Amino acid sequence: SYPIRATLFPGDGIGPEIAESVKKVLATAEVPIEWEEHFVGTKVDPRTQSYLTWESLESVRKNRVGLKGPMATPIGKGHRSLNLTLRKELGLYANVRPCYSLSGYKTRYDDVNLVTIRENTEGEYSGLEHQVVRGVVESLKIITRTASLRVAEYAFHYARAHGRERVSAIHKANIMRKTDGLFLECCREVAEKYPDITYEEVIIDNCCMMLVKNPALFDVLVMPNLYGDIISDLCAGLVGGLGLTPSCNIGEGGIALAEAVHGSAPDIAGKNLANPTGATVECSYDVTASET
Amino acid sequence: SYPIRATLFPGDGIGPEIAESVKKVLATAEVPIEWEEHFVGTKVDPRTQSYLTWESLESVRKNRVGLKGPMATPIGKGHRSLNLTLRKELGLYANVRPCYSLSGYKTRYDDVNLVTIRENTEGEYSGLEHQVVRGVVESLKIITRTASLRVAEYAFHYARAHGRERVSAIHKANIMRKTDGLFLECCREVAEKYPDITYEEVIIDNCCMMLVKNPALFDVLVMPNLYGDIISDLCAGLVGGLGLTPSCNIGEGGIALAEAVHGSAPDIAGKNLANPTGATVECSYDVTASET
Ligand SMILES: CC(C)[C@H](C(=O)O)[C@@H](O)C(=O)O
Ligand SMILES: CC(C)[C@H](C(=O)O)[C@@H](O)C(=O)O
Repeated sequence: SYPIRATLFPGDGIGPEIAESVKKVLATAEVPIEWEEHFVGTKVDPRTQSYLTWESLESVRKNRVGLKGPMATPIGKGHRSLNLTLRKELGLYANVRPCYSLSGYKTRYDDVNLVTIRENTEGEYSGLEHQVVRGVVESLKIITRTASLRVAEYAFHYARAHGRERVSAIHKANIMRKTDGLFLECCREVAEKYPDITYEEVIIDNCCMMLVKNPALFDVLVMPNLYGDIISDLCAGLVGGLGLTPSCNIGEGGIALAEAVHGSAPDIAGKNLANPTGATVECSYDVTASET
Repeated sequence: SYPIRATLFPGDGIGPEIAESVKKVLATAEVPIEWEEHFVGTKVDPRTQSYLTWESLESVRKNRVGLKGPMATPIGKGHRSLNLTLRKELGLYANVRPCYSLSGYKTRYDDVNLVTIRENTEGEYSGLEHQVVRGVVESLKIITRTASLRVAEYAFHYARAHGRERVSAIHKANIMRKTDGLFLECCREVAEKYPDITYEEVIIDNCCMMLVKNPALFDVLVMPNLYGDIISDLCAGLVGGLGLTPSCNIGEGGIALAEAVHGSAPDIAGKNLANPTGATVECSYDVTASET
C-alpha cells in the first residue's frame, strides 16, 4: 500500500548528507515513500543517552523496510559494533550486494554484473575466542545447518526471481572439511530444488583469482560470513569502491534493511563531497524489493 | 659452494614437463646446479609403495634448497594433502610470493610489484574441527605468539634485505580481536626493531578492495595462513595467474623449497602446453636466496 513507510537511520559522519541526497532523489522520482527517521550512531542521543533505542529497532520491524547510513563503533572498550548489533537484533541473516560496472564510472573492468550473498550471522563472526595458554589463542568458527540452509535458500530464490542463471558456492572445504563442508552440503540440498539454476562450487582462493582475471565468469555467489566480507569488498573494488555499491540485509519475516557499506568518513563530513550513489541505488533496489 | 645441489620433486601431471623446462633454462644460463630428483606425488612409487619417502624429506633437509612441482592429493579418505604434509614435515613456516607485472604478459594491471608473506603452519589450517551437535560444527583457528613472531621477523628481514620500504600486516582484528589481535601485537613488536621500514595494518576486506583498485599501494604484505592463501591468489590473478607467479617456502634452518603454485592440470599434461614461467622464476629466485 502507498505511501511506503520506511525507516531511516542516517548514521554518523557523511551519513546525514547522504540520507538527504537519497530523499531528494526519491522525491524527484516521485517514489511514494514516507521516511521515519531514527537516531542510531556513535554520538549518544541527547534525549535518551542511548546509541540504539528499542524504538529504532521496532521501527524496522514494523515497516519491514529501511535504510541505514554508515555507523562507526562507539569508542571505548566493550562496545560492540552497531552494525553487528543491528544484524543480530533484527535477525538479518543474508547480506546481498549487487555489483555491476557503472557506465559513468570508468575502472579497469567494464563487464562486472554479479551479486554476492553473504551469510550474515555466524562463521568467523561468532565472537567466541579465548586464550588457551599464554601466547596461544583460538577463535571458533561456527557453521550451522539452519543458517546455511537459510542463506542458500535465499540465494537460489534470489537467482530465480532476478533471472540469474548460476549460483556459485564459495568455500575452503579442502581445508575446513567439516565447517565449510556442512555449508556446501546445505547448498547442494537446496540446489536440487532449483534444477533451472546451474550450481557450482569454487574454492575461495581460486574464486578471488578468477574474479580479478575475469569477473564476467560469475553470476550469484553465496558464502559463509568472512568470505562474503572479503569477496564483496573485492567486487566493490572492481567497479570503483564502496561508495558505489548497494547493499541490503535480509531478515526473518521479510525485513529488508538497505545500508551504505562505506565508512562514516568523518574527514569529509559536512563538506558536500560524499558520493551518495551507493545509498541511492540501495534505496531504489530496496523499495522494489518490498513491492514484490 | 658450487655446484649447488638442489632437490627436485617434479610432482604430478604437468609437473615433470615443467621440471624439464626449468632444467633446460638453468643449464642454458649456466647456473651451476646439480639436481637430486625424488618422486613425490599421488601415484604410489612402484619401488616403495609410498607417496612420500623419508629419503625425499632428508634430501631437502640436507641440500636446504629445492623445487617442487604441483602435487594433487591422493584420492581416498584420510589422505592429507601432500603440500600440507611437506609444510609440516619440513617446518616450512613462511610462504613467500613475489608478484609483479611481467612485461611480456598483458593484463589489466601493469604496476604490480609486491610480495605476500604468509604464515604457513597454523591459523585456520589447524585441522581441528568437530561436530558440536547434529547440524552444528566448529573449526578452530589457532594463532600463536611463536609462529606470528617468526613470520613477522621473516617479513621485516625480507623487506630490508630486498630494499623494500613498507610492511603491511593484513588482519580482521576488528572481529577476531584475540587471534588476529595477537598476530598484530607480534607484528608491532617486530616493527619496533625495524625503524627503517614503514609499518601499517590493513583490514583484509579493505586490503582486497585496495588491491584491485590500486595494487601499487602495496609493497610487502604479511598475514595469517588463510588470508595469505586468499590474497596471494588474488595477486597472482592481477598479473596473469598461478602459472606465472613464483613461490618459495621458508623453513627452520634456512630451508628454501620453491614450488609451483598452480595445479597439476592433468587435462593438458604431456601435451607441451604448460607454462613453466612460475617454476623457472621460482627457481632462479631460490638459487639467489641460497647464495646470500
Ligand atoms: C565494519 C565491519 C564489522 C563489517 C564486517 O566485517 O562485516 C564491514 O566490513 C561490513 O562488511 O559490513
Ligand atoms: C592446495 C591447498 C591445500 C593449498 C592451500 O590452501 O594452502 C593451495 O591453495 C596453496 O595456496 O598452496
